[in-house]
Amino acid sequence: MTKKELLYEGKAKRLFTTENPDLLIAEFKDDLTAFNGLKHDQERGKGALNNQISTELFKLLEENGIPTHYESTPDANHMIVKKVDIILIEVVVRNIATGSLTKRLGIADGTKLPFALVEFYYKNDELGDPLLNDEHCIVLDLVRNEGDLEELKRLGREINTILKAFFAKRSLNLVDFKVEFGYDKDGKIILADEISPDSCRFWDMESGEKLDKDRFREGLGGLKLAYEEVLKRVLSK
Amino acid sequence: MTKKELLYEGKAKRLFTTENPDLLIAEFKDDLTAFNGLKHDQERGKGALNNQISTELFKLLEENGIPTHYESTPDANHMIVKKVDIILIEVVVRNIATGSLTKRLGIADGTKLPFALVEFYYKNDELGDPLLNDEHCIVLDLVRNEGDLEELKRLGREINTILKAFFAKRSLNLVDFKVEFGYDKDGKIILADEISPDSCRFWDMESGEKLDKDRFREGLGGLKLAYEEVLKRVLSK
Repeated sequence: MTKKELLYEGKAKRLFTTENPDLLIAEFKDDLTAFNGLKHDQERGKGALNNQISTELFKLLEENGIPTHYESTPDANHMIVKKVDIILIEVVVRNIATGSLTKRLGIADGTKLPFALVEFYYKNDELGDPLLNDEHCIVLDLVRNEGDLEELKRLGREINTILKAFFAKRSLNLVDFKVEFGYDKDGKIILADEISPDSCRFWDMESGEKLDKDRFREGLGGLKLAYEEVLKRVLSK
Repeated sequence: MTKKELLYEGKAKRLFTTENPDLLIAEFKDDLTAFNGLKHDQERGKGALNNQISTELFKLLEENGIPTHYESTPDANHMIVKKVDIILIEVVVRNIATGSLTKRLGIADGTKLPFALVEFYYKNDELGDPLLNDEHCIVLDLVRNEGDLEELKRLGREINTILKAFFAKRSLNLVDFKVEFGYDKDGKIILADEISPDSCRFWDMESGEKLDKDRFREGLGGLKLAYEEVLKRVLSK
């Protein structure tokens, strides 16, 4: 399978069409951005790490009944994925309050939430990805059917249940994560984008150490080592 | 009935206890604030106008089956109201997109919304009244029962239906409004606070002229004349 046209370039990935109209090639870049693009850097090897981690997590989710866009991983920086009509809602699931939630709602950093909190954000860089309630999603015409919002929440919670247990066995607290979904060619909602330390927060259960993109956001250094550690644990039985 | 202790002072009202433990006296102030208190002024007679307008609208809503905290209006600046346990959610209902909604979601000012859009904001000055989704309300423990959120939405929409028709007959477009609710002594959710040009947006159906607090927010002048015009139309048959 070969790259044809560049279909889309995001902050951390490029998407290319292929000779198969139903499949795309995703290229994982080494770029890091934060604060809606205000902070930007590169970390050699980061893209390959995220590709490997995403590959393993997509396989895990598929085995547990979550439909994903994952097809195969031909090499270090590339993943073959099903083409989807992307839903412009970033679905965030939180187990522990940190980051924007603590500032916005005045909840103390590190507070264990009473249940997995699901939030929708408008995937719109220009507007700074604003928070949405369900009715905003309908007004903005972001889903094909109103019931799709419940399906996004259900999938978000199920993914959380699966990943939280998987990482707990590997001594990592899954603090929160962001996922994106799309409609496949049959109109079914499937998981798209990636699942990596760029889009999840992982805290080591022993030391509390942050093993995710917060190392970049907060200028803590050691980003690549942290991502390598996450991959090592993902691959461990 | 006489004022005993000052129970609460808000930006536009003071609440006093009375000799009756179930009733409070609300005093409508002449103060105007906007942008979370950053802009502040006074307009002599504004409090009395809002008291009269609120009085008429509470009576209208009661006649149409909406439970409110309204008891009576003893004089120009005072209203006797039932004591409630206030719910810290500002319920906003929008018919036409304007103000913060247009900036936040990139919807053109003046767009007619496809349905009455209901939003919840956290009544918290320190945090700048942030937008909430339903799950945030539960995490923050803002209602007694989860079903109360649906009741708030239902009441918000019903109030909108009643007020929109009432004002349309008086050649005013009800653009949007903010209402607050509380639990009465029996635990029932009733409408509290006020309904006035401080908390609603009214656009004249002919001229498009703004007859509400946006005159203050946008420095248009003629605020008192606008509020007097709203009162005149409210009182017209």
